[in-house]
Amino acid sequence: MFEKDMKISLLIDFYGDVLSDKRKEMISLYYNEDYSLSEISENMGISRQGVRESIKKSEALLNEFEEKLGLLKRFDEIIKDIDLIKISIQQISDSIDDENIKSKLSETIKKLSSISI
Amino acid sequence: MFEKDMKISLLIDFYGDVLSDKRKEMISLYYNEDYSLSEISENMGISRQGVRESIKKSEALLNEFEEKLGLLKRFDEIIKDIDLIKISIQQISDSIDDENIKSKLSETIKKLSSISI
Repeated sequence: MFEKDMKISLLIDFYGDVLSDKRKEMISLYYNEDYSLSEISENMGISRQGVRESIKKSEALLNEFEEKLGLLKRFDEIIKDIDLIKISIQQISDSIDDENIKSKLSETIKKLSSISI
Repeated sequence: MFEKDMKISLLIDFYGDVLSDKRKEMISLYYNEDYSLSEISENMGISRQGVRESIKKSEALLNEFEEKLGLLKRFDEIIKDIDLIKISIQQISDSIDDENIKSKLSETIKKLSSISI
């Protein structure tokens, strides 16, 4: 039915709270918990077709938000910038011999890696 | 009337596109271009009271979005993390003598400073 891709999970993470609680629950079960449509249908006492339509509607709403606001794209660019900076720091580390400094630089790369959206 | 603070400008930047074009224009003129209510009223051919109400409504909507989604807060936390990492890199730089490495580290700090949304 839908491609269960990472992008939808991120969109749910970013904009999911604009959806009603029920809609959010259904799309989260589908994309984040890997439930099937039938399982969600049984769980929530809604027809399989109803679940399918709700998830499609939620997907459209989330994509619409991203088209308008583009915040996921903006955050993604920050993470890409950070990745490039990590590479530069690694290169600096590779160019020196002092183990103490190397270890501090490696710590800095770890801290940068812990930044997520 | 309102406190013309940075936070509203950031909220406009993040969520402004959920507002109608007219509402977005009014609140942007007020908070980003520092127009007065009377100036916006003259410019847009709307009563001063109408402008005031529109801006108040927009402010409420933008705050509501941030309360729901908290993306400005998330971004702010990333910037705070980056600031701490810049301090660590500066400390590493201060602890060494090699001018070449110091200059590369200073370049890295500059790159981190250029990260914004």
